[in-house]
This record gives sequence, C-alpha cells and structure tokens, in this order.
Amino acid sequence: MPNELRIAVLGVGMMGADHVARITSKIAGARVAVVNDYVVDSAEHLAASIPGCRAVADPLEAIADPEVDAVLLATPGPTHEKQLLACLEHGKPVMCEKPLTTDVETSLAVVKAEAELGKKLIQVGFMRRFDAEYAELKQLIDSGDIGRALVVHCAHRNPAVPPNFDSAMIVKDSLVHEVDVTRFLLDEEITSVQIIKPSANAHAPAGLQDPQVALFATESGRHVDAEVFVTTGVAYEVRTEVVGELGSAMIGLDVGLVRKSAPGVWGGTIAPSFKERFGQAYDTEIQRWVDAVKVGGETGNYIDGPGAWDGYAAAAVCAAGVKSLETGERVAVEMVDRTSI
Amino acid sequence: MPNELRIAVLGVGMMGADHVARITSKIAGARVAVVNDYVVDSAEHLAASIPGCRAVADPLEAIADPEVDAVLLATPGPTHEKQLLACLEHGKPVMCEKPLTTDVETSLAVVKAEAELGKKLIQVGFMRRFDAEYAELKQLIDSGDIGRALVVHCAHRNPAVPPNFDSAMIVKDSLVHEVDVTRFLLDEEITSVQIIKPSANAHAPAGLQDPQVALFATESGRHVDAEVFVTTGVAYEVRTEVVGELGSAMIGLDVGLVRKSAPGVWGGTIAPSFKERFGQAYDTEIQRWVDAVKVGGETGNYIDGPGAWDGYAAAAVCAAGVKSLETGERVAVEMVDRTSI
Amino acid sequence: MPNELRIAVLGVGMMGADHVARITSKIAGARVAVVNDYVVDSAEHLAASIPGCRAVADPLEAIADPEVDAVLLATPGPTHEKQLLACLEHGKPVMCEKPLTTDVETSLAVVKAEAELGKKLIQVGFMRRFDAEYAELKQLIDSGDIGRALVVHCAHRNPAVPPNFDSAMIVKDSLVHEVDVTRFLLDEEITSVQIIKPSANAHAPAGLQDPQVALFATESGRHVDAEVFVTTGVAYEVRTEVVGELGSAMIGLDVGLVRKSAPGVWGGTIAPSFKERFGQAYDTEIQRWVDAVKVGGETGNYIDGPGAWDGYAAAAVCAAGVKSLETGERVAVEMVDRTSI
Amino acid sequence: MPNELRIAVLGVGMMGADHVARITSKIAGARVAVVNDYVVDSAEHLAASIPGCRAVADPLEAIADPEVDAVLLATPGPTHEKQLLACLEHGKPVMCEKPLTTDVETSLAVVKAEAELGKKLIQVGFMRRFDAEYAELKQLIDSGDIGRALVVHCAHRNPAVPPNFDSAMIVKDSLVHEVDVTRFLLDEEITSVQIIKPSANAHAPAGLQDPQVALFATESGRHVDAEVFVTTGVAYEVRTEVVGELGSAMIGLDVGLVRKSAPGVWGGTIAPSFKERFGQAYDTEIQRWVDAVKVGGETGNYIDGPGAWDGYAAAAVCAAGVKSLETGERVAVEMVDRTSI
Repeated sequence: MPNELRIAVLGVGMMGADHVARITSKIAGARVAVVNDYVVDSAEHLAASIPGCRAVADPLEAIADPEVDAVLLATPGPTHEKQLLACLEHGKPVMCEKPLTTDVETSLAVVKAEAELGKKLIQVGFMRRFDAEYAELKQLIDSGDIGRALVVHCAHRNPAVPPNFDSAMIVKDSLVHEVDVTRFLLDEEITSVQIIKPSANAHAPAGLQDPQVALFATESGRHVDAEVFVTTGVAYEVRTEVVGELGSAMIGLDVGLVRKSAPGVWGGTIAPSFKERFGQAYDTEIQRWVDAVKVGGETGNYIDGPGAWDGYAAAAVCAAGVKSLETGERVAVEMVDRTSI
Repeated sequence: MPNELRIAVLGVGMMGADHVARITSKIAGARVAVVNDYVVDSAEHLAASIPGCRAVADPLEAIADPEVDAVLLATPGPTHEKQLLACLEHGKPVMCEKPLTTDVETSLAVVKAEAELGKKLIQVGFMRRFDAEYAELKQLIDSGDIGRALVVHCAHRNPAVPPNFDSAMIVKDSLVHEVDVTRFLLDEEITSVQIIKPSANAHAPAGLQDPQVALFATESGRHVDAEVFVTTGVAYEVRTEVVGELGSAMIGLDVGLVRKSAPGVWGGTIAPSFKERFGQAYDTEIQRWVDAVKVGGETGNYIDGPGAWDGYAAAAVCAAGVKSLETGERVAVEMVDRTSI
Repeated sequence: MPNELRIAVLGVGMMGADHVARITSKIAGARVAVVNDYVVDSAEHLAASIPGCRAVADPLEAIADPEVDAVLLATPGPTHEKQLLACLEHGKPVMCEKPLTTDVETSLAVVKAEAELGKKLIQVGFMRRFDAEYAELKQLIDSGDIGRALVVHCAHRNPAVPPNFDSAMIVKDSLVHEVDVTRFLLDEEITSVQIIKPSANAHAPAGLQDPQVALFATESGRHVDAEVFVTTGVAYEVRTEVVGELGSAMIGLDVGLVRKSAPGVWGGTIAPSFKERFGQAYDTEIQRWVDAVKVGGETGNYIDGPGAWDGYAAAAVCAAGVKSLETGERVAVEMVDRTSI
Repeated sequence: MPNELRIAVLGVGMMGADHVARITSKIAGARVAVVNDYVVDSAEHLAASIPGCRAVADPLEAIADPEVDAVLLATPGPTHEKQLLACLEHGKPVMCEKPLTTDVETSLAVVKAEAELGKKLIQVGFMRRFDAEYAELKQLIDSGDIGRALVVHCAHRNPAVPPNFDSAMIVKDSLVHEVDVTRFLLDEEITSVQIIKPSANAHAPAGLQDPQVALFATESGRHVDAEVFVTTGVAYEVRTEVVGELGSAMIGLDVGLVRKSAPGVWGGTIAPSFKERFGQAYDTEIQRWVDAVKVGGETGNYIDGPGAWDGYAAAAVCAAGVKSLETGERVAVEMVDRTSI
C-alpha cells in the first residue's frame, strides 16, 4: 500500500459526498483519488474541487483502476452486489454503506464469495460500533461489571423522513441499526422478530406505520425491545439501555454541550440529525478502516469493524421484521449456519 | 365529621404500622383511634403507645365502632372483600391497600355493592398517583404539550423480594402498579396483556421468572411495555416514559439529592426501597384522603383518588397477565362494561 | 403540653399566613389557636376560617395567653426583640422567622436573656437546614466521605424582588441564608466578609447593586464564595458545592420532576420561587419544631434547629457585609466569645 | 503551500510526541517532516518510525529548513522567544504551545516583532477555544440569548501534579487557561487579579498553596472567580458557568458516556486527565491550524485561533497573579495599549 491510501468513492449523493469531504479534510493517510456517480456531471464537478482527483464514469472501471487502493461504496443498494463482487475480484478492500445488498440471498452470495477468497475485504457501514458511547457500553458489558445482560431497551427517533419512506423502510433503514447494535452488544444472533404497531402518529404521512415497536429474542433467550419512531418532529434521539444481572447501563440521554437556565426552564439542545449525533463515529470508522487497510496485506484482513456476515445477518433479521410487519406475528429469523461457510 | 378524623387501622404489619406512624406524626386533622390485627398482642402494644388509641380484636367490630369515622385496610388481601362490604354497610369511608380483593369476581362484587349504595366510599391505595413526578407527568399529558401519547415505556426494578415471592406475584404485586399508571396516564382501559419471559436472572431464586416484560394494548391502540425485574440487587428504580405525537417526557431517572465527585467517578445514590421513593406520595395520599373524607358528606364522595373500579380493572388486567405468564401468548382482558353498573 | 399544641401565629402577612395554612392542613399534633396582626381585620378574617382559632389584637397579650403553648413570630423584624423577650418571660417556646432582631446589639441581648433563663426556647427560621438536599450534604460532609471541606461555592438567584429592595437588603435578606448555610455545613464561625460589586444588571432597578459576590473566610481558613443575584428574571435557583480534600459534592442543580424532549431541546422546569423550592423544608421545620416543643419540658430544650446564637452570628456577619458593601474592602466580623455567655 | 503541509515539531517530550502522533494518524493534509529535541536520540528514534521524517539536531536549522512549511513548538518555555523570532525571520507559520515566552517583556517583544512583519504567523496553543463545549458557550453568549454576561464562575481541578509543581506554577500553568477562557468568552482584557489562599489541602505536597481561588475584574467591570485545585485525587474536572442578564449557561458537568446503575448508586466516569477531556479539542486545533496555514498566503494570516497578543495578555495577567499570590492583595494588570503596536 502507498503511504497515502487512494480511495475511489462510488456514489456521491448526500452520504457519498459527506465521505468525500471527510476523507479530504479530516482523515490522515488517505485521499480521494477517484469519484463516480451515475449523475456524471455531479462526479466531475466534485472531482474538479479536489487536488489529484478524477471522475470515472463506470463504477466497475473505477474499482478496477490500478491507481485505486480501496473503494467506498455509497451507491444505491441495488448496485451493491455487482460492485462488491467486483471489489472481491480485484482484491480491493471495500467499505460498503448499508445495506450489504437488498435481499438475504444476494447478501449470502457475497458472504460466500468473500469466504472463498479467504480475505476479509468487505466492511459494512454500521457506524454506531465506532461511536464512543456504544464502544464504552460494549466495554462495560464485556468487563462483566453489570453481569450478564438479560434485557435491552432501545429507542430510535428521527424528527422526519423523506416523503417516500414507507413502513418497511422503517424496518430496513432505521431498525437495522438496532439489529446491528443488538448483535454487537450481545454477541449472538437474533432468532425471532415481532413488530408491534401502535396507534399511528397523526402527523405522519398517511399509511405510514409509525411508531413501530420491535421485539427481538436472541439465541440464548435475551429480550430486546426497540421503539422506532421516525416522524417525532423533535430531534434525532438514539438511546440504548442494557439491563444486566448486576446492574444496568444507559447511553444516549443526549444532554447537549451547554446546560442553560432560561426563564422557568433549564436544559440543552438535542442533536437535530444523525450527522451531528454520529459525525464523530463516521470519522472514527473511516480513519480506522484506512488504518486497517494499510496493514491488511500481512494478515489478509482489511477491515476493522463489521463485515459481510454482519450485513447478511442484518438482512435476515430485517426480512423477518418486514414479514412480521405484515402479519403482526412473531417471525423466526432464517439464517444459514455460519460454520457451514 | 369531627374536627379530628378518628381512623381505625386494620392490619398493623409493616404497611399498616407505617400508616399508623404516618397518621400520628405527619397528618393534620386525623388520629388513629382504633387498631386491629389478627396478632392481638401486636395491636395492643401499638395502641398503648398512641394517646387515645384502643385495640379492637374483631375487625368487623372495629369497622362498626361508632367512634371510628373512617377505616384504613392494611390487612391481608383475602380478608378485604368481607371488610370492604362491612365498611359499605356502615357507611364508613375506607382506604384499601391494594389489592381490592384477590380475584376479579369478588372485586366486581365490591364495585357493584358500592354502586348500589350510591356513595363513593372506597379508595384503593395506588399511591403513585400522588407522587409529585407522576402527577406532573399526568398534567403534562393533559396539557397537550407533548401531543397524544402513543407509546409508554416503564421499568420497575426492586433490589430483592421476600423468599416466597413467585412469578405470578410479580404480576399481581409489582406489575399491578404499571397497570394503574397506564390507566391513570392514558385514561382508558387495557385490552390485552402479553408477558415475555427473557432468560432469567441467575441470582434470582430457582424457578422465579424474573425479569418479565409485559406488553399492554389499550382501547384506542396505544402500546405500553413494562419491564419488571425484582431481584436486581441494585436499588428501587421506577421509570416511566411517555412518547407523544409532539414530544416525550420521562420521570424516574433518580438523580438523588447530592451530586458527588469521587476518584474517577461522579453520581448519586438511588432510593433503596419503595418507602424512600414513594414516602412522600403516601403522605400526600393519606392527607388528601383525610381531607376528602371530611368534606365527603356533602357530596357522597369520600375519596380523592383511585376507587373500587380502578381496583377491579387492575385485577382484571393482572388476571390476564397471569394467564399470559403461563402460555406466553397475548391474552385479552375480560371486563364488564362500566356503564352497565 | 397538651396532645395538640396550641400555637399563636404573630403576623399573618404572606409568610405568616403561609405558616397558618401549613399548621392547619399539613402538621400533625398542632393547631393555630390564636392569630395576631397589626392589620386587625386581616387577623380576624383569618381566625374565622379556622375552627377553634381566635384573633387577639395585642401581640404581647397573645404571647401571654394561657391557652397558647407556643409562638410563631412572622411579624416585621423591628418588633422581634420585644416579642422574643416576652416569650422568654412567659416561658413560651418560639419559632422566629429571620431576622432574630434587626441589629447585632439587640440580637446579643436576646441571646443573653435566653442564656440567663437556662432554657432553649428560641428557634430561628433558617429553613434550609431542614431541606433534604442540605441535610444530606451535611451528612455527607460529617461522614468524612469527601474529606475536610476547603472551599464552598454558593449561588442564590431570585427571578425578582419587591420594588423597595435595596443593596443592603440583598445582604441581610438573601445572603443571610448563605451565611447560615456556611456556619451549618462547616461548623465554625465566619471571621471576615468581602462584597464584590460586579457591573450591575441593566434590568435591575436603578441603584441596586445586583449581582453581588460575597467572600467569607472562616476561623480555620476555609473559603466560601456566594453569588447573590436577585433580579435574574429566570427562576429561583439555589446551589451549593462543597469541595473537600477527598472529593466534592453539589446540591441544587434543579432538574425538575419531568425530563421533557421537545423540538430541538430537552430539559425541565425550575422552581419559580422559594415557596416551591423550600416548601417541603418549611413543612419539616415546623413539624420537627412542634415535636421538639412537646418533649421539651423534660430537657429545657424546646427547639430542633438553629437557635438564638445562630441568629446573632448571622446578624454579625451581615453587619460586616453591609459595611463591606460600602467600602469594597474585606471587613472583619465582630462577635463576642460564645463561652462568655 | 504544498498539498501536504510539511511540519517540523520542535520538542518531542510528552506534549510534542502527542502532536507528532496526532499529525501522523489523525490530521488530513499534513505530515511531520522534521522532528527535533535536545535529547537527540529521542528525536532520531521517533523520526525513524514515521515515513518521510528526519531528525534535525539544531532547532533553528529545523525552522530554516526549506522542506519545512510550518513549525509546531513544544519545546521548554525558555527557548520559545528565540525560536519564535526565528520563525518570524523565515516567514514560517508556527503553533506555539503555551507559554508564548516565560515573561511579559519577551512576550511583548515577540508581539512587536510579528506586528512589524505585518503577517499573523504565530498561534498560541490555548486549545480550549477549540473544545466543542467552550465553542458552543461562546456562540451562546454572542447570540445574546443569555444577555450580557456579568459574572463567570470557573473550576479547574486536576487529580495530581508532578512533584516539582509549585504555587506559582498553579497560576502560570493551570490558571492561565481560565485567563484565556475569560478573555475569549468576554472579549475584553482582565484589569486586576487577586489570589485567595484557602486552608491548604493536607494531601498536597508540603508548601504547595492548593487550592487557590482567583478573582478577575475586567475592563467593563465583570467579575470572574476561578477555583484552581490541582491535587484533588479525583479526576480532571473543568467547569465554567456564565451568568448573564437574561439567563445562565454552564459547561463541564462531565456526565461521562454511559450512565450506570450499580448497587445503591448511579453515575458515570469522569475524564482522568486533560488528554481525554481535551483530546478532541487538540485534534480540532491542529486540523484548523493546518487548514489556515494552507490558505494563509493570500491573506498574510496563517492562524485560526489565539495569537501572540493573547499569549502576551495571558503572561501579563499571570504575572499580576503571581504577585498577588505573594501579597494576598488585588494587583492591577500592566499591559501596553494594543493600538500602540
């Protein structure tokens, strides 16, 4: 690997453009060498603003480019499968924004393809694992200090969502983070999902089942509940509480930076969106990925974080969640045996 | 009513003795005139320590005593039905510690007997309604400030329970408070209950299903979840969060009175038991009951708080909860139509 | 003493009327038997609303009344000396709202008169000692848990003061509470006072030096600073932090009862006035005083709280404070040797 | 300027080595090209671990090196004057860890030398200005939301200091941060300083006056008090409260990342040292300095933060503080008129 990692960013919409700015202005030891987008002008315009950066029109060509050391996928989900397989083919480490792919079968295909290659090249963008609060919570659990975790409570609230957001997307785009958090914190698979549909928010778009309350059971019988409410009008609030046999621990009671007293009231501000809440987590995720890629050659492992299996597992749980959303019943999660791969 | 209300306290175990001390040393306008207990010595010993107080051996005689203006029932649940009916018969206002009676049928019988009398004489000891935090939360909901409540999250944790506590008692003695809180805050009935049984606490007595997570649905489709965990070893923690269409509100993040910094850590103490957490609520409950009894004559209403119907409704929900504890399934709550009484 | 203590309340302005209501509706074992006010109608009107209560026109007659067991003084400060001496003369226990008297000499005279009598009859209304937060802070200090206290920081903020409030009253009426808190927490006398006069609040009445920052030094060299700011327009905020050799502890970060999330912000309400903040402290103060008076006969001590000496010491410190307000210099506190009395 | 800024780090003790690691692993668009230390081996060892980095034995030679674009001074204070003047001479932007120089006169000489050059090349390492909490507090003040600030309270507590730390160093090394914070937040100069010496911590080294309480008055008459306590044994705690005419605001109530409940208590961890508390502030400071240096050519301004004048002002205030430490009296700050330079 060169001293300065040359990254191709595929997809420069909101998320991808954010990563381009991040790599350019905040990340040590890396630069954006290539950008690509199906809106060609957009990519070219962006490339022009970054020293040493080119726009490449074809994503597969960008992946194959010999002057690209690693790939960051921020393209739409349906293109992921093909692009991930191309990365594997060219032996390029890839950071893939969620989802891994858009369904369980293709996710499993990607898992298998990487397994056959024998190198860990694919990292999935579950950035919460890099958030300082989640990281400390995980450490606390692993320390044994609060005993074995028995129950986890999550809340995930957005002030608003785009107009086209539907009830299944609440599962696949929002709840998916609680799926990964559960697997990360408890170190085991989720075996069943039930989605409860409370009386819907009158201020939500017609037909949107919001809020939803998801119930997970895990392999060893732990219980997780997760309220997802994406049209609160309030702020971006993410909270997780782990209740263990010797104590409990909570993160995400956002207290803001400044505590203010004003006539009759006190308090602080809450993060308006995931960008403020998890901005630092994204920075850490990308810096650590860049660092891991650079040392990966020796070990065959080019990732420092959740991989293809985690993307597949999340897809399997969300598929069960979408089914439960329809039936209201508890749905078993169907996954292959990890040791079979 | 005389200027100083003469109260008979029936049952002077832990709870009753606490009420005797409260009325004697903290409540204005009332005194304990009579005490009764099936352990006669215990009642006589207590009576001797209070000026103007007598022990009466027979509870029904104590109720009928012409020098008793009102009754406080802290006797074991199985005796409540007979004692409540005696209070109605003699027209004596009565504060009845939960449960109203030990089953749904007898609870309904008491509701009907009081309805026939046409006077509201029976108050049930759901003290949380008098807690300053719950009262302010209720006010906030009623103000419309956080919009229509859609979801409620509760946690109810005890450090320990007596040795004979079984899984059904977690529903009937602990969860019953969340049942009443739900009905109080949301002003509607609970229509179904499901008890989820996570992997049990290894430090709990063998066979005790602890923790339990209860799910309530209400008439208009609101969702409530309540974690009840009675062997945490930690402290007495009671928390309720109401998530509304315009905002959310939480009570019970016990922060203690003093914020202390010590080597490496900061924090405060948590209430060790319900006595510290709800001591003030009990004081308020009894003072307001005493005040209400004194003015009751004019209105036929001698209570300022939850009444017999609330006791019946709680019994009906808990009965469904116990059934769900056995089956794991969602169980519909069976209640008569209130307008039929 | 009779079973129900018969109290004469002298002065039924805002403070006195509040005490009358408190004794009547919240305190066990006592009743208001006599009320007095220089506005005779006001006293008579109030008396008529309370069973068994009379208005007595002459305060000294009220004190002497054989059907009065104890006296609560809520009269203007300039009348205190004469009324306190009358209480001593008739051997009546008296709860005296601050100040003890209006100057250091007469305060000392009262201290000496009580000392000669050999009975502790006078309690001074420093209610903060009965506040649960201050009581726990005192316990924490006394436990040794945070080591020897070296520095204390206080803030005392009022939203507004009456129009006639002048700069010296900020010392004598507001800062006096921090004087007593300091003596209570640190268990020693204050030896010097300096008042710092920052740039004044533009929203305060012209000529009012507000805020003020007071610096106290104590006998053993501890340092206390107290910001007093009585025209904040915000709320009633009282905070005390004790910094010890092994840790620190803070009270008064008013967090309210409910934590609310609303668009963009979270927080709670702050107590609007001392009545909400210290209402419970007043209740406790009066209940414990009533209880102490009843058992006082045996011991000659009819008080449970700060006494005449504490009133005198506060007067001496405030006198030095007023002098410093004029000069800006540090002023030594002049007090007699306690053992000389 | 080249695309990747080539920095010489002078002094690679704890602070300098930290900056070398930071630039290498966290900062975009810069690399450490040269390191220097009077312990030559130490510099050579470090250089060997960083691709493209050389050790240069003579600091002035390192500054003059044509392949060095900017300098970071982490050398001992007594060498700063000569090194800063060399930076000015070679037109090299320089980030100078505090102090600017070790006395007021030489600090002024540096200010004048830079002024004569007509380019802003010198930034001083007051990192708190880049801390997210201080930045938001500053914004809040500037927004007018809490009105004009009248009083500021600061606390600055360290768990421990090195053995050679003396009472004057508490002023010059610790309190200096509150000096800069005051000037930053209030946008005016400090005109007098008084150091109060409370009874000293028995656990501090013999002869160390710890804690100290500093009082500042500013040009327009605002009051600042700052408790500095460097042997608390507790943690690294930095708190600032600004009391304004319309409200107040506080930062630094360190709540940790995780809120934990354990038997009887709740709470979180506190940052053990300034590295954890201000790590992010250092990162932001250096990244923004690197970015500013790169665009500086066009404007003659190569800094984004406090400059030489701020270093001089801090020196002048600290000199007055050290004098007050000796006399106990209020000491006027002597500074030249800024417009005269």
